[in-house]
Amino acid sequence: MLRVGIIGASGYTGVELTRILSGHPECELTVVTSRQYAGKALSSVFPSLRQRVDLVCEAPELDQIMGKADFFFTAVPHKTAMDIVPALLDAGKKVVDLSADFRLHDAKVYEQWYQAHSCPDLLQEAVYGLPELYRAQVAQTALTANPGCYPTSVILGLAPLLREQLIDPKTLIIDSKSGTSGAGRTASMGTLFCEVADGFRAYNVGGSHRHIPEMEQELTTLSGEAVTISFTPHLLPISRGILSTMYASLSENCDMKAIQSLYEQTYADEPFVRVLPAGTLPATQYVRGSNCCDIGLQQDQRTGRIIAISAIDNIAKGAAGQAVQNMNLMNGFPETTALMGAPFFP
Amino acid sequence: MLRVGIIGASGYTGVELTRILSGHPECELTVVTSRQYAGKALSSVFPSLRQRVDLVCEAPELDQIMGKADFFFTAVPHKTAMDIVPALLDAGKKVVDLSADFRLHDAKVYEQWYQAHSCPDLLQEAVYGLPELYRAQVAQTALTANPGCYPTSVILGLAPLLREQLIDPKTLIIDSKSGTSGAGRTASMGTLFCEVADGFRAYNVGGSHRHIPEMEQELTTLSGEAVTISFTPHLLPISRGILSTMYASLSENCDMKAIQSLYEQTYADEPFVRVLPAGTLPATQYVRGSNCCDIGLQQDQRTGRIIAISAIDNIAKGAAGQAVQNMNLMNGFPETTALMGAPFFP
Amino acid sequence: MLRVGIIGASGYTGVELTRILSGHPECELTVVTSRQYAGKALSSVFPSLRQRVDLVCEAPELDQIMGKADFFFTAVPHKTAMDIVPALLDAGKKVVDLSADFRLHDAKVYEQWYQAHSCPDLLQEAVYGLPELYRAQVAQTALTANPGCYPTSVILGLAPLLREQLIDPKTLIIDSKSGTSGAGRTASMGTLFCEVADGFRAYNVGGSHRHIPEMEQELTTLSGEAVTISFTPHLLPISRGILSTMYASLSENCDMKAIQSLYEQTYADEPFVRVLPAGTLPATQYVRGSNCCDIGLQQDQRTGRIIAISAIDNIAKGAAGQAVQNMNLMNGFPETTALMGAPFFP
Amino acid sequence: MLRVGIIGASGYTGVELTRILSGHPECELTVVTSRQYAGKALSSVFPSLRQRVDLVCEAPELDQIMGKADFFFTAVPHKTAMDIVPALLDAGKKVVDLSADFRLHDAKVYEQWYQAHSCPDLLQEAVYGLPELYRAQVAQTALTANPGCYPTSVILGLAPLLREQLIDPKTLIIDSKSGTSGAGRTASMGTLFCEVADGFRAYNVGGSHRHIPEMEQELTTLSGEAVTISFTPHLLPISRGILSTMYASLSENCDMKAIQSLYEQTYADEPFVRVLPAGTLPATQYVRGSNCCDIGLQQDQRTGRIIAISAIDNIAKGAAGQAVQNMNLMNGFPETTALMGAPFFP
Repeated sequence: MLRVGIIGASGYTGVELTRILSGHPECELTVVTSRQYAGKALSSVFPSLRQRVDLVCEAPELDQIMGKADFFFTAVPHKTAMDIVPALLDAGKKVVDLSADFRLHDAKVYEQWYQAHSCPDLLQEAVYGLPELYRAQVAQTALTANPGCYPTSVILGLAPLLREQLIDPKTLIIDSKSGTSGAGRTASMGTLFCEVADGFRAYNVGGSHRHIPEMEQELTTLSGEAVTISFTPHLLPISRGILSTMYASLSENCDMKAIQSLYEQTYADEPFVRVLPAGTLPATQYVRGSNCCDIGLQQDQRTGRIIAISAIDNIAKGAAGQAVQNMNLMNGFPETTALMGAPFFP
Repeated sequence: MLRVGIIGASGYTGVELTRILSGHPECELTVVTSRQYAGKALSSVFPSLRQRVDLVCEAPELDQIMGKADFFFTAVPHKTAMDIVPALLDAGKKVVDLSADFRLHDAKVYEQWYQAHSCPDLLQEAVYGLPELYRAQVAQTALTANPGCYPTSVILGLAPLLREQLIDPKTLIIDSKSGTSGAGRTASMGTLFCEVADGFRAYNVGGSHRHIPEMEQELTTLSGEAVTISFTPHLLPISRGILSTMYASLSENCDMKAIQSLYEQTYADEPFVRVLPAGTLPATQYVRGSNCCDIGLQQDQRTGRIIAISAIDNIAKGAAGQAVQNMNLMNGFPETTALMGAPFFP
Repeated sequence: MLRVGIIGASGYTGVELTRILSGHPECELTVVTSRQYAGKALSSVFPSLRQRVDLVCEAPELDQIMGKADFFFTAVPHKTAMDIVPALLDAGKKVVDLSADFRLHDAKVYEQWYQAHSCPDLLQEAVYGLPELYRAQVAQTALTANPGCYPTSVILGLAPLLREQLIDPKTLIIDSKSGTSGAGRTASMGTLFCEVADGFRAYNVGGSHRHIPEMEQELTTLSGEAVTISFTPHLLPISRGILSTMYASLSENCDMKAIQSLYEQTYADEPFVRVLPAGTLPATQYVRGSNCCDIGLQQDQRTGRIIAISAIDNIAKGAAGQAVQNMNLMNGFPETTALMGAPFFP
Repeated sequence: MLRVGIIGASGYTGVELTRILSGHPECELTVVTSRQYAGKALSSVFPSLRQRVDLVCEAPELDQIMGKADFFFTAVPHKTAMDIVPALLDAGKKVVDLSADFRLHDAKVYEQWYQAHSCPDLLQEAVYGLPELYRAQVAQTALTANPGCYPTSVILGLAPLLREQLIDPKTLIIDSKSGTSGAGRTASMGTLFCEVADGFRAYNVGGSHRHIPEMEQELTTLSGEAVTISFTPHLLPISRGILSTMYASLSENCDMKAIQSLYEQTYADEPFVRVLPAGTLPATQYVRGSNCCDIGLQQDQRTGRIIAISAIDNIAKGAAGQAVQNMNLMNGFPETTALMGAPFFP
């Protein structure tokens, strides 16, 4: 039985991690921390967990919690993560970090989008935890950088096209829409019910969202040439779900049947990527509460473009679900353990 | 491995049954029927099930499907159910019926609220499938009548009070609110998104809802005297969830601490009933997607009333979850099998 | 042209007042205050108002703003209101106060539910601003206490029954459900989108909601005997709307046709109260954005009770709309000015 | 007083037209038709209209209704419209048609996307009713083709860029998101509450949506060269609102300050187009229930693209509101009559 801890358990990612782990037969959640709720039962912070999870939040004092688990999820803001992770690794723990702190390989890029990095050496050690691309590496590492929610939807949706040079990367436009849980559980006027419900808006328009360097890093690796994207995130009046609509000009002589087939083959053995039949499109409500990523493809013959659309649950495959998938790989558990539940619909 | 069939799989109860059963280690879903979608993959009817459930809908021809399973859920409208169930029982199958056809013990009452009953003898054999009240009987029967969604929330919420004569049954007023999935998946103007969203209304006001006789039957049994209730259902702009707010005058000299304690004791060993700490109240979002029933109690000292509030997920504990709980009991599986997942929040 | 000011314009009541006043031909909004947004354009606080309202928020310094308007709406929290209103009245201004500070006639009752009252004398001068009950008095006063949202829906829904002694007041149970705008625009974890959406809960159960004394004061006046109610508020996942479901035992020999007729006569000349035809029930989506209060009645013959259901928009007839209705009366404008717009549906 | 009729009043456009017209001082709604609800009060079809609109639906028999109004809105499906409009014009009526039947100038294009056109001559007479482009022509015509909802948001959002050749039209990608009222009020499984709520999806992907030729016609006219667009519509879980996110490569040496300024000048005198300050972005909740179109602009310096974002209420500026705006122009009323109400927020 693997003893598992969550550092930063009082956010939406924390409660989803807890929910998934409560059904995991190979591990036991032994410690959860929350600065704000230290001393309170986690099930009073999240009443959904009553009689399912019986842990009291502890203050995030590494000395106190280090001995209580062998594996840690760090679900804290960027910057805070890099203050914690090195000590965990030094103590021989394995870690899945859900912040942005170890996703970028290049410290300069990190510093350009965030701030100075306090442990740039670890950037080389950390594995980008998208198992569909880096399964073998994740299985070997002690530190997995769990991908961002938008990047997960985008990279899975585009990987085959870029790897096979089927599109012109310079034409890539990515229009993404996310549920509000992505904004976190902190009191804020902008995400009050009455501000979000019955409405829709874009934000961070024009190339300023911090998930951009992460996407470009991976898309560049896939493509073999430098990829620069236009990326626009939007806020949906739903709790869970991301849908990314991705546009690119097809290279000459591309055949949609071949592309459809390429996607089906690429993901044939992937338990969590579902390539939809030609003519079918994904919807966030069909992946809700699951670790699935659904992908649909459509050609626009009039303009020579392809439109790839992917849907995930942003706090499952986009965060907590993928984190458990990585934990499974890092510990030699079957990769799908505790993650094969069908999506919740309706 | 128990072979299980669902007759009437294309409604919201059907998809939830399928989702739950897909994670059940002791049974295999072997046949699903749908008159409307016969010949189509169930996963094309409910894309959430893609790559999780690999069954094609069959026409509901008993001859064709009878041999394919040993246990059946009948999730068809009332009247249709009583045309099917006797043949299934005659063939030696066990059945959980999710319609209203076998919930009432008295054929006359049934006829008063529905229509003539074609197999009144079965009314005596059928067990009312609320395990918290009839666990032993469910374990012995071949036919369980799965309770209605409103009655599940109401009976669990009131049972201790009535059994111990702590309230005056004549003063019982039940104000219930249900998510829209209770209205089914049939095309209808009244449950279009734009008719329901950002709105709220009562319906079947004044004693006309067909769940009333079912509630009164069980509340009368609990109380020992005839109970007649005022019951008002409302339609919530959410997909899943029922919250019932129940009012009654307390008998003299009642002590809330004792009542709280009574509830805690009554449900102490129940895996799916969570009595909330005094001063805490349930919310549908904390039971969403689970088989839990949360109950909170509050006294109104100014008027001498007690207010009991219960919350369930109407298609889980209110339908499919409870049906699987009954199936577990009828087949000697641990009662909680496939049902202990924590609720989905957010 | 009446010069009008809003003290406390940055909440949901403030923006609705501003919207309504922007279409009022007899008055001009000349000053708006907001402690938090002083110096900012109101249309930057509420982008919906861009190019429709061209005012900059001022700090709530009475000296500075007093001369800029002849009529004031005070839309500030209780306690703050009673610090401001006397000075406005002393300066000869007329005021509609939207807080609770002047609704209760009895300072002792006020102190029991709130805190000490700093100007109890004004409690006798202030008129309870429900025009359907106190039209003449509102027209004569300089200080109108705008009713609470719940009380507006409840008092209008019950007035004829109580005035004519058609129900037993001791049996009154009021189950109300409100949209989330009632919780205000202040950052708060409990009203974040993800905490409210797709969910439903009760709050302040058991006789603790501060609107109770206000309802009881008016219901007692109508009834002629002391009325004590059970009142349970709930939080709906919608922005606007209150639906109150009210239960009471009918006096003997009551005839529903006569009651229906009584309601129709009582409200025949009321421009904002719509008594629905027998058999028809209100819904919040049919009053959204309007100053209407819809009322439906239904008998429960099985239990001898009547169920009266009323629906309002909590920030229109429940706050800003009614406040403008009172302003119209206090200034001799036609009562319906700027308020006759049909509800927004869908 | 202009006598006005609505042919096809029982849809969401019909109820919004009725709501707006009920506040219009220069016209009187004298006849409404509905095949389905003939003989029923319109206020029983839409209870929001109770005591605000007192008309009974009539069957759409032109002989019967022709004499009852001088001006008609035809809010019927395409194909049905072209069967009705010629007769109305022959009888000397003026018409705003809200279908697609008269929006395209070229009958061949119409036939390619719809079916054969029965009165192609009228295509030359009809004016495309986007007042911001064709104000003078609308004022002179007897037949205005009211633009589609998506095209209204797109054309207003792009007009200055195309007219001034500031973007490369070949790079135009339009990602639009619409509220569910656009799908109409007909019973349908796909737009049930539980299918739409808490979800998001694309539809008609790959160049198949019928609003494409209408957009291309107008964008081509503006640009002076043939424009072919990629257009992807999505379904939002809200009732009202369209947000269009539009991407294009900027021509060389474009300056964002100049572009911002160009938009502000272009729309300076337009009462319903609000160009947002630089750095500010639109949201559907800030135009809800109004005739406004909000536009925000942002450069993506990393890719040389501009992102223009526009928001409208799809049944107001996207349908009924714009139709009344056109009616005002066609009858010499001030263009803004009955349309200057501020948006509803929250």
